[in-house]
Amino acid sequence: MAARRPRVMASPMTLAQLTEEQLLARIIPRMPRGVGVLVGPGDDTAVVRCDEATIVTTDAAVRGRDWRDEWSTPQDVGAKIVAQNLADVAAMGGRPLGLVVTLLADPATPVAWVEGFADGFGEAARAAGAGVLGGDLSSAPSGVLAVSVTALGTLDGRPPVLRSGAQPGDLVAVAGTLGRSAAGLVLLQKQRAELGPELVAAQRRPQPPLAEGPVAAIAGARGMLDISDGLLRDGSRVASASAVALDFSREALAPYAAQLANAVGPDTAWECVLSGGEEHSLLACFPPGQVPTAWTVIGAVREGAGVLLDGIPQLPGGWDHFRA
Amino acid sequence: MAARRPRVMASPMTLAQLTEEQLLARIIPRMPRGVGVLVGPGDDTAVVRCDEATIVTTDAAVRGRDWRDEWSTPQDVGAKIVAQNLADVAAMGGRPLGLVVTLLADPATPVAWVEGFADGFGEAARAAGAGVLGGDLSSAPSGVLAVSVTALGTLDGRPPVLRSGAQPGDLVAVAGTLGRSAAGLVLLQKQRAELGPELVAAQRRPQPPLAEGPVAAIAGARGMLDISDGLLRDGSRVASASAVALDFSREALAPYAAQLANAVGPDTAWECVLSGGEEHSLLACFPPGQVPTAWTVIGAVREGAGVLLDGIPQLPGGWDHFRA
Repeated sequence: MAARRPRVMASPMTLAQLTEEQLLARIIPRMPRGVGVLVGPGDDTAVVRCDEATIVTTDAAVRGRDWRDEWSTPQDVGAKIVAQNLADVAAMGGRPLGLVVTLLADPATPVAWVEGFADGFGEAARAAGAGVLGGDLSSAPSGVLAVSVTALGTLDGRPPVLRSGAQPGDLVAVAGTLGRSAAGLVLLQKQRAELGPELVAAQRRPQPPLAEGPVAAIAGARGMLDISDGLLRDGSRVASASAVALDFSREALAPYAAQLANAVGPDTAWECVLSGGEEHSLLACFPPGQVPTAWTVIGAVREGAGVLLDGIPQLPGGWDHFRA
Repeated sequence: MAARRPRVMASPMTLAQLTEEQLLARIIPRMPRGVGVLVGPGDDTAVVRCDEATIVTTDAAVRGRDWRDEWSTPQDVGAKIVAQNLADVAAMGGRPLGLVVTLLADPATPVAWVEGFADGFGEAARAAGAGVLGGDLSSAPSGVLAVSVTALGTLDGRPPVLRSGAQPGDLVAVAGTLGRSAAGLVLLQKQRAELGPELVAAQRRPQPPLAEGPVAAIAGARGMLDISDGLLRDGSRVASASAVALDFSREALAPYAAQLANAVGPDTAWECVLSGGEEHSLLACFPPGQVPTAWTVIGAVREGAGVLLDGIPQLPGGWDHFRA
């Protein structure tokens, strides 16, 4: 009589079971090569056709801090880190050229996680017209998983739109949503994702209005940035860099809060709109009459300092790394 | 009678005790701004004057894997990650333009560690003529400390020197040392640093011959890379990319091994020379008669495949991430 074979649960293949070459062979085909790439992945460096004035920015994400595996798929993580970096490019009035990525991973990480990450990363890069120029794989201690990305971009010959250009009398406008990513995070934390699946989706994969960066630059935007740490906090950065005050209008912001109120309640909705991070919408100041179509006016630039709401000074609030 | 006051050990200030702005104010002044930097740190992105063909490369380091705090000061870690990245720039025949850096750190990390890291990073960048364009700070789970760097460089109008250009009949040459970093690691592991302090120094702070990258390119180098994972392993990469064999000469390599033998013994010395990683010397192939002064011929390119030693095929060996 044949012995009964024990039922074995197939354990997923991990990074430790592949050579670096084998792993790269699974990652690189998932990435877009991009235009203007003279040398792609596989040599000591990439070589990319750049402008005289080239944009460069870098941003990292760490498991357990910037994402949680129970809330985000690897595809989500890949797409989000691309969005974060490319929102910075857009916030200078630029257009993305290319990305490089480092992955720091516990060798026990499933290969499928890395493949999923590469899929999400590659799709988001492709959609934005950014090639993936290269990367680096590093092993990390048990449990650690982190990614770091650098984005290159072009200004197409225009001057960069700095945070420091806002002038009293300008209108303050936003392209994209407000508070949705933060509201999604609230729902995930309360385990009530079903109350706002579209908000949870915004938390997992922010969709910055990347094309509006160059549009705003051409229209004459000044004092522009992307909202990564909250409207009031990022607004206070523009105010400080430009030596002005940004006065937001409660009436103009009310529709953003109203969209969230059913899911998270009215008070939290306002908190999300004013202080919610990871939205990656664009905030900019425009001379009156120069606000582009897709932008919504939400305030005005005044003499003074800091951020105001209907003329009343506000604490910046928002997200700070390293603080408890 | 007064109660005796308990003696309190002053605990070092940690990242959690500073805002991001306060921390940046301690880091940025330690970094060189560099030439050609149109917008430096502090806005959404940096803007840097680049060439039509711009080099980009990225490399990360993780505590517990790429360095150990008992062996390396934060200054060492900062200098080493710059050397690693700039060696890749040199290996294309390029000259560094600028660097961006992300730091992923447990909030309990001492501020003094980050300041020391910034000092080492800034000094190494300054010495190489590379500005520090910007960076990102991310909090990480308990115990985690990692850095990721992206370097930009220029080819000054020359074509890049790829790994794929070696031709049968070329001479194989090296600029810089061989096996010293690996020998230093052996001494640290054996707790016998006193047997070779200069080798331990090479492990802690490799000194790649960065200027020899452009020199080699101008001299007609082809099939160039930097030795990051070992002579045989990196040599096999050139061999594979160029569809040739690299035949190293034991006699030509003997002086490199001899320099290490007193400290680590003759067998380990040869192992370090042939398979030692983190050296970041440059390996290149030159048509006969075109080897620059500072380079030493250590072999020849032949028809065939893989790496040889005095005509005998060798296994590539060397370092692979994620493998046990």
